[in-house]
Amino acid sequence: MDSSNFAPRVDDIRPFQVMELLRRAREMEAAGRDIIHMEVGEPDFPTPAPIVEAATRFISKGHVHYTPALGLTSLREAIARYYSDRYHIDVNPNRIVITAGASGALLLATAATVRPSGEWLVPDPGYPSNRHLIRAFEGIPIGLPVNAETDFQPTPELIEASWHGQTQGLIVASPSNPTGTVLEPENLKAIHEFTTRKGGNLIVDEIYQGLTYGSRDFTALSCCSHAIIVNSFSKYFGMTGWRLGWLVVPEGTTNAFEKLAQHFFIAPSTVAQYAALAAFTPATQAILEERKQIFSQRRSTLLNGLTSLGIDVPCTPIGAFYAYADVRPLGLDSRAMANHLLEDAGVATTPGLDFGNQDPGRYLRLAYTTDEGRIAEAIERIRGRLF
Amino acid sequence: MDSSNFAPRVDDIRPFQVMELLRRAREMEAAGRDIIHMEVGEPDFPTPAPIVEAATRFISKGHVHYTPALGLTSLREAIARYYSDRYHIDVNPNRIVITAGASGALLLATAATVRPSGEWLVPDPGYPSNRHLIRAFEGIPIGLPVNAETDFQPTPELIEASWHGQTQGLIVASPSNPTGTVLEPENLKAIHEFTTRKGGNLIVDEIYQGLTYGSRDFTALSCCSHAIIVNSFSKYFGMTGWRLGWLVVPEGTTNAFEKLAQHFFIAPSTVAQYAALAAFTPATQAILEERKQIFSQRRSTLLNGLTSLGIDVPCTPIGAFYAYADVRPLGLDSRAMANHLLEDAGVATTPGLDFGNQDPGRYLRLAYTTDEGRIAEAIERIRGRLF
Repeated sequence: MDSSNFAPRVDDIRPFQVMELLRRAREMEAAGRDIIHMEVGEPDFPTPAPIVEAATRFISKGHVHYTPALGLTSLREAIARYYSDRYHIDVNPNRIVITAGASGALLLATAATVRPSGEWLVPDPGYPSNRHLIRAFEGIPIGLPVNAETDFQPTPELIEASWHGQTQGLIVASPSNPTGTVLEPENLKAIHEFTTRKGGNLIVDEIYQGLTYGSRDFTALSCCSHAIIVNSFSKYFGMTGWRLGWLVVPEGTTNAFEKLAQHFFIAPSTVAQYAALAAFTPATQAILEERKQIFSQRRSTLLNGLTSLGIDVPCTPIGAFYAYADVRPLGLDSRAMANHLLEDAGVATTPGLDFGNQDPGRYLRLAYTTDEGRIAEAIERIRGRLF
Repeated sequence: MDSSNFAPRVDDIRPFQVMELLRRAREMEAAGRDIIHMEVGEPDFPTPAPIVEAATRFISKGHVHYTPALGLTSLREAIARYYSDRYHIDVNPNRIVITAGASGALLLATAATVRPSGEWLVPDPGYPSNRHLIRAFEGIPIGLPVNAETDFQPTPELIEASWHGQTQGLIVASPSNPTGTVLEPENLKAIHEFTTRKGGNLIVDEIYQGLTYGSRDFTALSCCSHAIIVNSFSKYFGMTGWRLGWLVVPEGTTNAFEKLAQHFFIAPSTVAQYAALAAFTPATQAILEERKQIFSQRRSTLLNGLTSLGIDVPCTPIGAFYAYADVRPLGLDSRAMANHLLEDAGVATTPGLDFGNQDPGRYLRLAYTTDEGRIAEAIERIRGRLF
């Protein structure tokens, strides 16, 4: 077997660019350098203690067998209750599909819907796996250039103008990675009405749900009954390494996702599912809301620090834990800038290149997934080395 | 969104047929009936205590973050050592890709290799997900009818005769589900030489490796440097619900699998990986070898019992934990027979329908994943009700 044995899709799927930079950062750390990590899309907090305790209790008996492909009924019901308690939305637990992380959820959603040669609109910049999963199932991802003027989110007008005969679907994310911006509910509603009228698919990525700073905690469930909604235990719930997420699928479509899940996964991790049952308890929620406050403070520290450096973040992030900074005025392309910041200031960041093809040299993503003191230090290091 | 929004592949992918029967079995249990479960491809043993302890130790610190997409280096090295210690094969740990179960491994292997409209040979009967994953990536699974005359395994001659211009690859399994038969090493070697000469792909499923009763413990690694090898912590290692498996990929191809793994999964479960580090310790190995002895005894009890009933198992299973019984002489199609055994004897089994399209009404799969006493009782119940 050599490269000629690979399917053509393999050539078109690109690795996460930041991995190269991360490898270099690890090398530097191994050589004794102190690196401030602002490149990683992963909360730095440990798993909340009640979740760890639930997992420990469960595995201590050793009965770690397969669950149904759709996940534990009790967990699907707990998620439905969460939507009801927090968002005042009634959702039938039968519409909830537990998955191996949000990655598994996106994989199922694209496998179920992407037709060969069907075109899908994906906002650029956006999470890179969306376009690669469309390609994996032989669809054609079409970058929908979005910029700071519309909060890096597509507008209903842009989508209507971009939709044509071959267009099959659209993936949006709110809050968005890499920009942290959100889709206005009325815009999402209009987009959903449009894609439904066109008989197209709409996938809404809500994996940063719960991590919004202000009053905008929201779910597409409230307006988008025909959409497939992707969610995750990784970000707000702080369970990255457990690999657990979920889909909410339109009423009446669960069986299709169930059979795909059987063959793709058999079932999601049983350990993670029993752990996640503790994610909705008052004790865990109190911990998560406290962390959200900490993220909010870090965000202020980072945004103020960047402002003090004269680095512009054109759209104030409303959610997630990223700032998408415009580094063009500094005179270096963002990849060169990321290398410079790493080598000279010991600050790891992610260049825009990972998030699309539209003007990727202009922006740098900084994640506030490290503590306030380290963020402040990163700003001072950049000040010292860059200017 | 309605059924017209699904991709055409969804129509062609069938659910596990046994699920319907399992649902009925659960109903009967809820109504107070005692059901003997011989339908499930899952060992009944708890996770070995040293694995549970390793997991508990790891999660107690709460630092359950993402690992690299290829998995923990320490686990990849542990697997390489296992191949060396047990099979006397040197394998570069860089060729090992840790995955979300063997399902995740098969998903990566098919995503990497299956070309649209490429034809793949899959032995029939065989594990149903193989053909559905080929279909998922727009390839065309071609059933390769195998029967008791060749131990339900394809011969090099059959493959040569079936391979033509559009053929792109072949998936074989040894030991096989549903038959428990193995590919003779010399046949596998000849098959590998043939597919390599043709520039085709060969995927070898070894997820039941370690569970062979006799002297035939073997790995395709010893003869098939161009094959993609699929393995699992679920069966021999007894870790089903943890969802962990691995691939061994040909030298020089790891990067392609890595980028697919990044987008499909981000990474496998961190908890499962730290747990699995304890799977290769002498303490765990002693437990697993003891369980293998128990499986071997159960196998004898089941095979002797079926013989006493006059039910023929045409090929003595060498591995896994299944017997594939020929029920045609009993005068009922295997689906009707499975329903009859469930309703009248309270014994759940899996009809051949799940494993292919070739003569599926003839065979019934019985799993010896329940203890010897229950197997003996199942035989007596069948004797009482069936004859």
